[in-house]
Amino acid sequence: MKKRVAIIGMGFGGIRAARALAGSGHDIVLADRNNYHLFQPLLYQVATAGLEQESIAHSVRAMARHWPGTRFHLGEVTGIDLDTREVRTDNGIIPYDYLVIGAGSCTNFFGLDSVEQHSFDLKELADGESLRNHILTAFERAVNEPDLSRRRALMTFVIVGGGPTGVEFAGALVELIQFVLAKDYPELSVHAARVVLVEATDRLLAAMPEKLRTYTLRKLRSMSVEVLLNARVVDAGPERVVLHDGAVIPAHTLFWSAGVKASPLSSGLGVTPKAGGRVPVQPDLTLPGHPEVFVIGDMAYLEQDGVALPMTAPVAMQMGSYAGKAILAREAGTNLSPFMYRDKGSMATIGRNAAVATAFGLNFRGYLAWLVWLLLHLYYLIGFRNRIVVMLNWVWYYWFHERQVRLITRREAGQRH
Amino acid sequence: MKKRVAIIGMGFGGIRAARALAGSGHDIVLADRNNYHLFQPLLYQVATAGLEQESIAHSVRAMARHWPGTRFHLGEVTGIDLDTREVRTDNGIIPYDYLVIGAGSCTNFFGLDSVEQHSFDLKELADGESLRNHILTAFERAVNEPDLSRRRALMTFVIVGGGPTGVEFAGALVELIQFVLAKDYPELSVHAARVVLVEATDRLLAAMPEKLRTYTLRKLRSMSVEVLLNARVVDAGPERVVLHDGAVIPAHTLFWSAGVKASPLSSGLGVTPKAGGRVPVQPDLTLPGHPEVFVIGDMAYLEQDGVALPMTAPVAMQMGSYAGKAILAREAGTNLSPFMYRDKGSMATIGRNAAVATAFGLNFRGYLAWLVWLLLHLYYLIGFRNRIVVMLNWVWYYWFHERQVRLITRREAGQRH
Repeated sequence: MKKRVAIIGMGFGGIRAARALAGSGHDIVLADRNNYHLFQPLLYQVATAGLEQESIAHSVRAMARHWPGTRFHLGEVTGIDLDTREVRTDNGIIPYDYLVIGAGSCTNFFGLDSVEQHSFDLKELADGESLRNHILTAFERAVNEPDLSRRRALMTFVIVGGGPTGVEFAGALVELIQFVLAKDYPELSVHAARVVLVEATDRLLAAMPEKLRTYTLRKLRSMSVEVLLNARVVDAGPERVVLHDGAVIPAHTLFWSAGVKASPLSSGLGVTPKAGGRVPVQPDLTLPGHPEVFVIGDMAYLEQDGVALPMTAPVAMQMGSYAGKAILAREAGTNLSPFMYRDKGSMATIGRNAAVATAFGLNFRGYLAWLVWLLLHLYYLIGFRNRIVVMLNWVWYYWFHERQVRLITRREAGQRH
Repeated sequence: MKKRVAIIGMGFGGIRAARALAGSGHDIVLADRNNYHLFQPLLYQVATAGLEQESIAHSVRAMARHWPGTRFHLGEVTGIDLDTREVRTDNGIIPYDYLVIGAGSCTNFFGLDSVEQHSFDLKELADGESLRNHILTAFERAVNEPDLSRRRALMTFVIVGGGPTGVEFAGALVELIQFVLAKDYPELSVHAARVVLVEATDRLLAAMPEKLRTYTLRKLRSMSVEVLLNARVVDAGPERVVLHDGAVIPAHTLFWSAGVKASPLSSGLGVTPKAGGRVPVQPDLTLPGHPEVFVIGDMAYLEQDGVALPMTAPVAMQMGSYAGKAILAREAGTNLSPFMYRDKGSMATIGRNAAVATAFGLNFRGYLAWLVWLLLHLYYLIGFRNRIVVMLNWVWYYWFHERQVRLITRREAGQRH
């Protein structure tokens, strides 16, 4: 019998679930508050003027054309009624027989209001453009700033969080400054610019083996990123960042990538949330007591071998495929074996010819890891045209040390809020 | 002796003036409120989801790297003091010995306040993105609109002005709807969408010979654009457009390209403005009484053979080059002969394989004119990477009938204001 399946969120998990279910004869509704799938892992390159925002997003309706039986619902989910089996959005109601929730995560400021108010993060597409505009505007303001210490503060960028996003953003930003902006602003002493990476623990890329962590730290420092370990940001203003020990860094830009938490949707599902506000799920990714509701990706809390699965794109993708297949199996009268995450490795790029990666129990670093990083990101990017545009930008940058998208496209307020 | 030359506006005229002056040993300041040169003739393709905004803009600092002796000043001009020879911006003061003013034009709503409030225009880069977001959002809203007449109003687009911008936008929009959105929105009867082109006179592309005007009208009508000649828009609301005869068109989108006027900067120059608020200039493009001040492009009013030169990119480019060379000649103790516009022809594209063009006294239409249009626009676009990205988008669209940039990147208000 034809069933109605609603999928909330067109992130890495949601689109894998949609693909698994497309053409199965069921009625699939794809819901998202945006009309595109965002390739978030490259958002930091939009923020550092390396990519145009359009090249890392792909229209959901363009994808849905190839997925028989699906239709798209643009709307922000305002509530889920588990009893009547209805999803409410600001654009209507979606009744369902099965529901797949993959609404992802948002930034966790851990209650630091002043930091939330004065910092940038990278979750939505427009965040990349806003941060790029802010960075470039800071340099333009520095040109006209006669006071030397204020000028240096305009050219100081504090990045919080030594995970992949923080490391990749720090590397891309310092290269933007040294390779590109140094030539754009002959009137500034660009070597006076500071990129400060603040990490609360004693290590960068905590999930990586020690050898790669050491390489990352050494590499970033040799690119003149100031890495502060065992340091925490506790307060911020429009022109300063305060550390746990009282140190004040004069800085006009604060980028926060020190934590995420599950989408607020997780709180309405009638279960006690786990770490990061995540929803504890059954081994088949269903909500306890609701075998018709699957929770996937960053919103799901599931332990494997005694450890919670990380909030990453590969986990979301595998969960999405599993949820889609599980629904098909259920309708065919069978059951899948419990979800099992297959860790294919992880990676982070630091700069030109420099990345770290683990795969198949092996460690890679330097040029080879960097090349693999490029190829895998191109592979997972959706849309053939997008791949060509992104590759073109990368080749351009590699050969000419040029990032073409250094445009201030909107005159935004000095800080985000 | 080294002189200070200030150039206001990095449009088609300003960058030609900068090129002519670069490397001459003078101190050149390039001022613009944006940090990029915008290739305005393709802005309508951003609005119709054909191009990403970044591909039609190019960083001024990237250009200035190749122009010895120039530096860039980001700022909005707030006033010009012709006596003390100073340009005031919101970002500082630029003293000058010579001044080239090419601040371009803005939209002329001819005092129709309700139209200004409820319509879109295309002058700034962000306008393209805003209009694209609005058009795509209208279709998303139509999907969820149960009332059939309101649904049709959401899919009705009124374009005012039968000049090149209106014609090109109408053609691109109707193709977007028929080729792309019809497949994206299987739940809508997209053939119910209306594209209405309203022109006050009895002709489209008034500057073109009659044969090409007739071709344009026939072509647009066969593409199912509703062309209303001898009609004027006199009033507008968020959901309706009112014509001169009282007819009301229910429409959620009104695009205004029925007129431009010179930048408000023209009013501070102490001369009585001519048609469109333009500044009457001497035969050498200088301001009467101020041989050190040149006014170029859309801001300048100059008659040639008894007719005012049009407010177009080719005129601005030739004026910009002339102004640069005139300053060099003056410093070398000579004088140029008066400015003389060489009309190389004009063109407009209507749709796939369909354009009109005049050149060397010959008329072209159809496929050949369309091909020449493509090649010339690629040639005049600045930045090699931009050319490749634009060409890629065009090839994609031509082969696959796909426009990839159909993203709603910002959730904007229903109308612009």
